[in-house]
Amino acid sequence: MNLISKLRVKPGSKVRLANVDPDFSGGYKSEKYAQQRIDEQSASIAELQKKLYAERKHSLLIVLQGIDAAGKDGTCWHVLKSMNPQGAHVQGFKQPTAEESSHDFLWRVHPHVPARGNVAIFNRSHYEDVLVQRVHKMAADKVIQQRYSFINDFESTLTSNNTTILKFFLYISPEEQLKRFEERLDDPTRQWKISESDYTERALWDDYIKAYEAMLEKCSTQQAPWYVIPANHKWFRNLAIGSVIEKTLKDMKLELPTPTVDLKAIRKKYHQAKKEKR
Amino acid sequence: MNLISKLRVKPGSKVRLANVDPDFSGGYKSEKYAQQRIDEQSASIAELQKKLYAERKHSLLIVLQGIDAAGKDGTCWHVLKSMNPQGAHVQGFKQPTAEESSHDFLWRVHPHVPARGNVAIFNRSHYEDVLVQRVHKMAADKVIQQRYSFINDFESTLTSNNTTILKFFLYISPEEQLKRFEERLDDPTRQWKISESDYTERALWDDYIKAYEAMLEKCSTQQAPWYVIPANHKWFRNLAIGSVIEKTLKDMKLELPTPTVDLKAIRKKYHQAKKEKR
Repeated sequence: MNLISKLRVKPGSKVRLANVDPDFSGGYKSEKYAQQRIDEQSASIAELQKKLYAERKHSLLIVLQGIDAAGKDGTCWHVLKSMNPQGAHVQGFKQPTAEESSHDFLWRVHPHVPARGNVAIFNRSHYEDVLVQRVHKMAADKVIQQRYSFINDFESTLTSNNTTILKFFLYISPEEQLKRFEERLDDPTRQWKISESDYTERALWDDYIKAYEAMLEKCSTQQAPWYVIPANHKWFRNLAIGSVIEKTLKDMKLELPTPTVDLKAIRKKYHQAKKEKR
Repeated sequence: MNLISKLRVKPGSKVRLANVDPDFSGGYKSEKYAQQRIDEQSASIAELQKKLYAERKHSLLIVLQGIDAAGKDGTCWHVLKSMNPQGAHVQGFKQPTAEESSHDFLWRVHPHVPARGNVAIFNRSHYEDVLVQRVHKMAADKVIQQRYSFINDFESTLTSNNTTILKFFLYISPEEQLKRFEERLDDPTRQWKISESDYTERALWDDYIKAYEAMLEKCSTQQAPWYVIPANHKWFRNLAIGSVIEKTLKDMKLELPTPTVDLKAIRKKYHQAKKEKR
């Protein structure tokens, strides 16, 4: 529990990412020592998601942001692998299409929020509109400032409808990013992903950090908190995010619905059917 | 390969499900003997799906139909567990909403067909409109007859746009269904799923079989074939479906896209950045 509150951005607090160590690994020396905990978490999350899906009272929205190669895709994979695909899905948000851009910035995300019983992961999200748009000055500063409160209002609408929102900012160091880019260069199955902008965006690192800090400060709210996840170690990232998800689902006090039918009567009918071979 | 053509419904052929053994297990004595093949398949499908996603030329639509407890959910889980959740999703179709019913029957499914690079699994589908609607006489026979050809036309539109369509009818025996219903009765975590209709629909078994046979006869086409999957053994169902998916993806001759950037130049920049520690 201590870990979770350490990672959570306290609403209204100042955020200085320079004070966060992206190598932090929660006291675990290596993946080997954390593996058991990660496996337990996955099993527990699997059980809890079944209840979430069955009960259909709550929904869970997980928002992932982070610089290129921060591990958003890997996180989606890890989180979803313990969930029934029926009730859990990833929604990625790439550069907006012409139609999307001709609407307000929340228009394209709203249809993808999870219905009661469901989990949705946003791989990038409405926060792009206060990140890339801010860094590249694609919107006036006044517009960006307005968006922070539009986002908070939007998220309040969701939470008031029993959607729990967890927002994870995956934080890696510039050195780790470079290492991951280089690994991609060496891997023929991933070379196609490499783009010129991977490199050019690195030059804007400091601007991105400022944009992330503003996002964390202005949009970590009581009902929809941001978590800063030290993500240089992929296994610790998984463990930290798993801890938050597990605790969040547990706090929902999920219950399997009681059967709507008379089980005894049904059982009797089955016995009869078996005797009659139908 | 022999297995695959055995399972495929030859376009224009007569179908008598009474001639299919739902216990068939392809010569494998038990799950133990099939496990290695199932694991190999999963690994191979994982690799192929990565290419499908990267290449963005083809898409794959998997349609699942079958009576209650035939194993549609379990199949979704099995197929998706070897795929990147980013590019693969399940879409379930339940009883149509009032809005859905006020449109043509393809209206609600069309938005969910997979974009190029993606895989979609339909857990139930537009075929419900020639199955449950036929059995319960919710539409006139003339309307049902028209729908078969509307479906074929619709599926042609999709395949002409590089969507490969695989349709699996999961075939279990009434005894196996009863066994699975009884297991549900004994499992407190699944009792909530039991409904009165599980039992009452069983009385319509023969009508359903006729509706399935008509669907298989009229809508197994060259470009979008139906496969009848003996599904009393869950592991054989997974193996059979995996075989078809694996072969289908292989036949697409998927290729990773060639990198769009000069990898050498990028590598040089990275080296420079490392020296300068930025």
